Amino acid sequence: MPATKINLPESEMERIVIVGGGFGGLQLARKLAKSKYQVVLIDKENHHQFQPLFYQVAMAGLEPSSIVFPFRRIFQNRPNVFIRNTQVDSVDPEKKRIFTPLGYANYDHLIVATGANTNYFGNEELRRHAIPMKSVGEALRLRNVILEDYERSLVTPEFDERQSLVDIVIVGGGPTGVELAGSLAEMKKHVLPKDYPELNVEAEVDIYLIQAGPLLLKGMSEKSSNKAREYLEKLGVKVLLNTRVTSFDGETVKMKDGGQIKTTKVIWAAGIKAMPIAGLPEDVITYGNRIAVDRYCRIEGMQDVYAIGDVAYMEEPDFPKGHPQVAQTAIQMGGHLAKNFKRIQQGKEAEKFSYSDKGSMATIGRARAVVDLPNFHFNGFFAWITWLVVHLFAILGTRNKLFVFINWLINYVNYNQSLRLIIRPALPIVKQEEEQQKD
Amino acid sequence: MPATKINLPESEMERIVIVGGGFGGLQLARKLAKSKYQVVLIDKENHHQFQPLFYQVAMAGLEPSSIVFPFRRIFQNRPNVFIRNTQVDSVDPEKKRIFTPLGYANYDHLIVATGANTNYFGNEELRRHAIPMKSVGEALRLRNVILEDYERSLVTPEFDERQSLVDIVIVGGGPTGVELAGSLAEMKKHVLPKDYPELNVEAEVDIYLIQAGPLLLKGMSEKSSNKAREYLEKLGVKVLLNTRVTSFDGETVKMKDGGQIKTTKVIWAAGIKAMPIAGLPEDVITYGNRIAVDRYCRIEGMQDVYAIGDVAYMEEPDFPKGHPQVAQTAIQMGGHLAKNFKRIQQGKEAEKFSYSDKGSMATIGRARAVVDLPNFHFNGFFAWITWLVVHLFAILGTRNKLFVFINWLINYVNYNQSLRLIIRPALPIVKQEEEQQKD
Repeated sequence: MPATKINLPESEMERIVIVGGGFGGLQLARKLAKSKYQVVLIDKENHHQFQPLFYQVAMAGLEPSSIVFPFRRIFQNRPNVFIRNTQVDSVDPEKKRIFTPLGYANYDHLIVATGANTNYFGNEELRRHAIPMKSVGEALRLRNVILEDYERSLVTPEFDERQSLVDIVIVGGGPTGVELAGSLAEMKKHVLPKDYPELNVEAEVDIYLIQAGPLLLKGMSEKSSNKAREYLEKLGVKVLLNTRVTSFDGETVKMKDGGQIKTTKVIWAAGIKAMPIAGLPEDVITYGNRIAVDRYCRIEGMQDVYAIGDVAYMEEPDFPKGHPQVAQTAIQMGGHLAKNFKRIQQGKEAEKFSYSDKGSMATIGRARAVVDLPNFHFNGFFAWITWLVVHLFAILGTRNKLFVFINWLINYVNYNQSLRLIIRPALPIVKQEEEQQKD
Repeated sequence: MPATKINLPESEMERIVIVGGGFGGLQLARKLAKSKYQVVLIDKENHHQFQPLFYQVAMAGLEPSSIVFPFRRIFQNRPNVFIRNTQVDSVDPEKKRIFTPLGYANYDHLIVATGANTNYFGNEELRRHAIPMKSVGEALRLRNVILEDYERSLVTPEFDERQSLVDIVIVGGGPTGVELAGSLAEMKKHVLPKDYPELNVEAEVDIYLIQAGPLLLKGMSEKSSNKAREYLEKLGVKVLLNTRVTSFDGETVKMKDGGQIKTTKVIWAAGIKAMPIAGLPEDVITYGNRIAVDRYCRIEGMQDVYAIGDVAYMEEPDFPKGHPQVAQTAIQMGGHLAKNFKRIQQGKEAEKFSYSDKGSMATIGRARAVVDLPNFHFNGFFAWITWLVVHLFAILGTRNKLFVFINWLINYVNYNQSLRLIIRPALPIVKQEEEQQKD
């Protein structure tokens, strides 16, 4: 831990340090952006990521830049907000201090909004070989790997070897898995036959969606779950329910029931694990590695340290087992906490948080979706339009909204995502040479 | 060299193998796309890159995807065109065969359209430390490095160290150097003060453009050259003419006249070097590593092997020292060679190539450009509009045209490129851990 202090202006204002600029942390920072607190937002990236559309980046339907937004742009002309690009290694609650590779910083109030990462449930082999989808960088990598493998398949005359390059296995039947499977199936139907006329797409390309439990989209209504499965099967996706993946060595997926699939690509969307910061008391870490908080988002037993979003675990009468780990929860907690901070400065009492369920939805391929509102479930084309509108409005920035909208329109009209590009930033020469020597 | 043959259909048609899908190779392949030849296009990337706008990608004004276009998309429904993603290691003209990491392929006609890469004139230290700008990946890397260094500058309290993070040195006064310098200067003026209010941008950020000769934009008219310099100096760029950079060790740029600049970033746009394929006779390699060709683009003394574009060196009466290494030359050669191939199949004689100079142009920051038409030179706002229109129409694909246009419009209206994003595809877990261990 470096002994230097991060360069930050000292001021009369109380300092709120927010760790993580996801849905929760960003909402909190935005709502405090004109307050009388000094707000320090710390994130590994220089941009906010709109996670619900990662799968479209992976499927070459959208560019990363359309669904991410630079923090500095959001906080232009907000002189009380300071952004630092780094990770937080640990916290010392006694000294009210966090430690980062750039140095340490003191806080008056700390908010842990670090979210969750992919959960491999301790299976080291899976972790090493499966492809995760929890960041826009990971989505881009998935895009590159899929496109590269199709290119390789053309110069692979052996049938079995070629099969394992073109087949794709998705593990996890939540929204990410379902939406990925649907959009891969559309790509198989509309794009691959045109791009790869040399490949017998219909006969060779298989898309598997494997779910451990008996239902897709657990947490949505049974009607929506069944409809999603129906849609996927109509699109030719092989949906395997009640099937548990036990291993993947980079070549073969093995299942508990003895089944095997040869493939080079397993996309792992089967679970998440919260990422608390080191240095918090052990007894506050609970289910799914989440941090137990009270109704004020305050970490149990601590002063001035809060957690919100996917990393937080709060019980309330209507949600005795905690809230769903979705964007809505994080946004509502971030907004609520900002309101409480302002109330405190005005000499008012903080208020308890209550989650308001606005429903949930998932899209399955082209022009089909399932939507669960609190008292009403619907699906089909109108559900898809609802999905589009809700997501379009949730994306930050007018330019991004416009670009996503145009991309969707073009893709809808000509069935042809045109972003099938393998692009990576070049490495420095020295690193390029290291890589070449390894090959 | 692997003994396997690349998987390619054998047919009655003569096979034309094109190495490189830049302006020349792509034009040739497109013009032959409905011909009675089997066309095999080989490129390291899966997309064509529109080089004239790399600098806007580097400056966060455009996304890579707006200026590149997937080859497979271009050749959908062109059953005589086959695309292979790989590099060509060497050629055996006796056996009429090329060798790649994927295996070998035979050709009836071979076209070398491999272009040119950055030339460090043998200075190994420069090659290791300077940042090149000859691919969209390199442009993205430059963008990431610039943004990361601004972030680092905020946590670097020492003045000198901070200076070397925010100052930028561009070497080479050709179009790339001039356009980069202009757009960096605009960023300094309009974006940095808003994004980095903590930084004293006016006092701290310096942009240098260093040119070995007495004029910028060598090859354009003296009027345009002087105007470009005037524009740049008005924007605050420090233009150093008649100045030769002798070394850069990653910290200090040293010049022949004894001058020194402390910086972490040197962008090297000072020269290019053609990249012929190994296995060609040594005596055909001439000035700038280019391949000497006759007026039919045929490599001197060879049958059935051609070179076009930046890698080719052709003398004609009006261009006794060869053609300028620009997109126009490549496009015209590619188109001409396609026409000759078709003529030969029709039993006609091949025709000699003649270059038609359509003029040249460069843009300097916002709403300013210089344009040289063969008999007329102009500059200013109207020249800038001309530049925009010409480049917009030259970009492949309606979607790309539309996205570039909207981006330009938005950037023009709000002075604010919003693509200031540091994004990289994630590495596979195993590689990530290797990297972490190194740190």
